[in-house]
Parts: sequence; C-alpha cells; structure tokens
Amino acid sequence: MPRFTSLDDLRTACTMLPSGDTEATAAVRTRQSELTKPAGSLGRLEDLAAWLATWQRRPTPRLDRIDVLIFAGNHGVTAQGVSPFPPAVTAQMVGNFANGGAAINQLAATAGAQLRVIPLGLATPTHDFTDAPAMSPSAFLEAVSIGYDAVEAKTDLLCLGEMGIGNTTAAAALAAALFGGTGAEWAGRGTGIDDAGLNRKINVIDRGLALHHAVRQDPLQAAQSLGGRELAAILGASLAARYHGIPVLLDGFVCTAAASPLARLATGGLDHTEIAHVSAEAGHRRLVAALDKSPVLDLGMRLGEASGAAVASLILKAALACHTGMATFAEAAVSGRA
Amino acid sequence: MPRFTSLDDLRTACTMLPSGDTEATAAVRTRQSELTKPAGSLGRLEDLAAWLATWQRRPTPRLDRIDVLIFAGNHGVTAQGVSPFPPAVTAQMVGNFANGGAAINQLAATAGAQLRVIPLGLATPTHDFTDAPAMSPSAFLEAVSIGYDAVEAKTDLLCLGEMGIGNTTAAAALAAALFGGTGAEWAGRGTGIDDAGLNRKINVIDRGLALHHAVRQDPLQAAQSLGGRELAAILGASLAARYHGIPVLLDGFVCTAAASPLARLATGGLDHTEIAHVSAEAGHRRLVAALDKSPVLDLGMRLGEASGAAVASLILKAALACHTGMATFAEAAVSGRA
Repeated sequence: MPRFTSLDDLRTACTMLPSGDTEATAAVRTRQSELTKPAGSLGRLEDLAAWLATWQRRPTPRLDRIDVLIFAGNHGVTAQGVSPFPPAVTAQMVGNFANGGAAINQLAATAGAQLRVIPLGLATPTHDFTDAPAMSPSAFLEAVSIGYDAVEAKTDLLCLGEMGIGNTTAAAALAAALFGGTGAEWAGRGTGIDDAGLNRKINVIDRGLALHHAVRQDPLQAAQSLGGRELAAILGASLAARYHGIPVLLDGFVCTAAASPLARLATGGLDHTEIAHVSAEAGHRRLVAALDKSPVLDLGMRLGEASGAAVASLILKAALACHTGMATFAEAAVSGRA
Repeated sequence: MPRFTSLDDLRTACTMLPSGDTEATAAVRTRQSELTKPAGSLGRLEDLAAWLATWQRRPTPRLDRIDVLIFAGNHGVTAQGVSPFPPAVTAQMVGNFANGGAAINQLAATAGAQLRVIPLGLATPTHDFTDAPAMSPSAFLEAVSIGYDAVEAKTDLLCLGEMGIGNTTAAAALAAALFGGTGAEWAGRGTGIDDAGLNRKINVIDRGLALHHAVRQDPLQAAQSLGGRELAAILGASLAARYHGIPVLLDGFVCTAAASPLARLATGGLDHTEIAHVSAEAGHRRLVAALDKSPVLDLGMRLGEASGAAVASLILKAALACHTGMATFAEAAVSGRA
C-alpha cells in the first residue's frame, strides 16, 4: 500500500512541515566571522554553508553522501505534438543512464554523487490532460509515495531531476495553475520545438487549464490533473527530504514546477531547497521569481535529468570545503581590521 | 636578466598574439551535435568545452593539470588609509596560504588543482601613486617577467589570483586609466571599508589619475604607474598562457584589471581568458562590460586569492566530463528528433 492513500493525508504532511535548525545556522555564522577572510567575502558560498547546516539540522554540515535521483515518466499529451522527440526517447534515455552515457552520469561522477534512476510506468503514459486528468488520485498518490520512499535518510544532499518527453508541457500547465497566467506565459521550447510546435504547446496548455480550471484552488489536484508521475515523485521526494533533514537541489523548470505545490501549501515550504540553476527554458525565470528564489547558477542549461543540480552540488562542495577547512584569524595569526 | 627588458619589447609581445585553433573548435562543436542531449541544451558548458579546445589548440581538450597561481604584492598607497586591514596582512596571508588555512587552499584541493603562491617584494611596497609612478619601468618589467616565467607549458588550465592589501585601489585606478571614468565610478569597498574610507579611496584614485594623466595613452605605462607588482605579474602570466596554449580563468576585479592591458593592446587579446565570476566589488561589473565578457559565475564573492577562479574551474571540469564521457545518439541507440 502506498505511503499516502488520500489527498488529505498528503495535504496534511505538506502543511505540518518541520522547520530548520536556527541554532545550527547561528553556529555556522559565528564560525564564518572568525575565518581568515573579510566578513562576507565568500558571498553565496557562506549562505549555502549556513543553509546546509540549517536543513541538515547540525552545526557542522557535511556532504559525504550526495544522492542524485532521477524520476522518469511518459505523457499522453505528447499525442498533441508538443515535443520534437518521440516518446520512446524517455525509455531509451533511461537505458542510457543505466549504461553511463548521459550527461548526468558524467556530472554525478564529477561530484562524487550516487545516481539512481526510477522509471515510473513508462509503458502506460499519463492521460492527455486536454481530455481528462493526467492521473487518477490513486495513481498520483502512488507516484508521490514512490518518490517519498526513494529518499534515504542517510543522504546529506539530494539532487532531484527528471526525464520525460513532453514534460515541459505538463510543468508549464502546472506552473500556470499554481501561480496564474496562460500557456503563452509559461510555455518554452523544451528540447527545441519549432514555432508551430510552440503554438500547439501553448494551445494545449490553455485547453488543459480550461478543462481543469477548478483545480487551481488545490495545488495537489493541480499536480494530479496537469502534472505527471515523475513530477509527482519529485514532490514526494522533496517532502521526504524535509522530514529527513536533507537539503535539496532542484534542477530546472520541470523539477521546480513539480516541487512548487509545497510552496503553495505552506509558507517556507521550499526553504529546504535551492534552485540549482536558472534554466534557459522560458518559464523558469518566471517560476523562480514567483517562488522568490535565487538560483545558484545561470549557465543557459536546459537538459533536465538533474544536470544543473549536479553541477550546483560542486558549488556546495566548494562552500563546505571553505567552511570546514579554513583557519581562523587566531589560528593563522592574521591581523583583523585595523 | 628579466625576460622583458623594455616596454617596447613587452608591447610587441602583447600585440603579436597567437590565435586560437578554430579547427579544434569545430571538432568540439561537431561532437557536441552527436551527443545524447537536445542541441545546445548544456548551454555554457558546451561553450566552455569549445573554448578549452580553441585555446589548448587540440580537438579533445583536457584538464589533467589545473594550476592556481597567486601573486602577492604590497602598495605604498595604503599610507592614504584606503583599506581597513593593515599592510602586514599581505605577508600574513602568504603564510596562511603556505600553511593551508586560506579559502584558496580548500578550493584548490576541491578542484584537484596545484597551488603556487609567489610573493613579490612584500618588504618594499610600490610607491604611493599619488606621489610618483607605482613602479619604475624596470621594476614593472621584472614583475611582468616573473609572472610570465611562472607559467608552466604543461598546464591545461591556469587560474590566476592575487593577494595585496590596497590593491583594489590600484585596480580601480588602472581600470579608470584604461577604460575612462573617475574614481567614483570604479572604486568599491574592497575588504570592507566604511563610507569615509571609500571617499578617501575615490579621492586617492582621482589624484593618481590626474598626476599620471599622460599614461592613459599607453596601457603598459598605466599598469606601471597605477598598478602593482602582483598586477604586473598577472599581466605577464596571462600573456605567457596565450603563447603556451593555456586557457586562463581570471578571478575578480583586481585580476581582471591586471590583465586588461592585453585587451587594450590587441583585439581579442583576452579571448583565451574567461572571467571566472563577477565579483561583488563595485567596479567589476563595469569592467566586465567594458571587456564584453560574460562571467561564468555570479556568487557575490569578493575575496580574491583566485577563489572565484578555483570555483569556476569546477564548472570547467563538469563541462569537460560531459564532452568527453557522454555517448552519442548512435552509440546509445537513442532516437533523434522525429
């Protein structure tokens, strides 16, 4: 039986979120003030070290175990011609992940991270959301539960990502449902669709929003009706990380949209996450602004598969190395301000 | 005898620069089009892999040997109260580098890079540039030569950085001389000077610019009159890297200003360099814009000592790992665009 058996159960879990450890935050800030550097001169690296401590709930953060989790799903809405790649590519890329040939394999290795890929019913795509809700409540809750249970408590940092031909359409529809706006405001070119395809995509999103207009009142029903299994699993994994004390790096547009119901259901619901990078996918900058987040990186990436999260984990490793390894002014006999 | 014995010798070396290998660039772009990802979806990572190949002048770039070079110098202009830290901190931080306690020690280790620190006459600061040229031509040429000769041809990537109490004042004056503008437009808070100190700093820069107004016509004389030994060495190292086929990551404001004479002396003179990060130091964004460069990172850092360059080298490692390790569509049996 899945962990969550009703939308109400899940909604309760999403609203009763544990908070961060502000004593751990303060311990990091105190140490930072003593290290051999002008105050604040490591900028974001200092903030990230403090963020790690806050959400790991320990005064000395660590990154011994970095997990990259990719969830894969297929989308009935691809029948509408919203992607230049055939849906078969989702499973083919899962094979590529298994064989070590994808970008994320190289990036996870560079970061010394463990990669796991979890395909979710690739042979049975979600329903086309212009016809019906993408998933039944039970199918949605099963995917959320799989995502939740995929997170291991021993993880120090969780990098989340996705693979799913058609899923920027689902993400744009979900973002529009959660934050308002139309297909034209949220749709992008995904893997590289042409002008005609982009217009089809916008129309598909607007039709989905019209059909499911009632779900705009409930972030979870919006995710069930417009999202996809891999998006639901990302929501579940983000939720599990909050309970287990694991900071999360969210990858680009799809991943951020997938986790966004947490921000709509609880104030600070995504405080244990950082947006790894701002994607070149059109809607991501708008989504990041709606969430009041500052992405760690801006490298024009738009690949998904946790690639941006894995790259950003390198920045966290740099931040942690400075925090734990530097000498204090006293230890190094370096003079402070005159 | 130093490598460069006259400003004219140096000027010739700075203007007869070797170009990049465009066949190597093309080889990288061809391979990128075959890798299992939507075209261009790794964004800047793809550009950086191509840049490495162009300036290493080989079709398959490598990063087996990353060198971090820090040059340290002292500045007579500190007598004017332009820094909140005493000049003794320069030598103390060189000791901290040797003992492994500084940020750059941790960051170089994170990147698997070799760190070398070269102090340049710390006991005899440059002249106060509000009184006289900071250096004689021969002292300037000696520092440039030391920087040039510090670069080893076997290096795959050179990360340049500096340490020198007072050197954001020198860098701001040099940037103003090279690109126009006044002290108020280029001065920042450096290690964290207060409002009164910032006003002193602006005044000092404007007085230096007035005294040495004639040198605005010659980037090398500007560097000699307003810069410092560590800035001169960075210029020399940047020049050597161009001749040896070594791509360069320039750290923040001081480092970028130090290398800028190359951009003024030859079109594309800094094409073999990337700006590692845009510093929080006020003048850096302006300087980067004047050079028409796009920094790799924007993390609010302002520490110097090659810290931003070392962090950016992690991004290059990620870029290279993808480029060399990914499977092609054919190898992975992944379908292309429909």
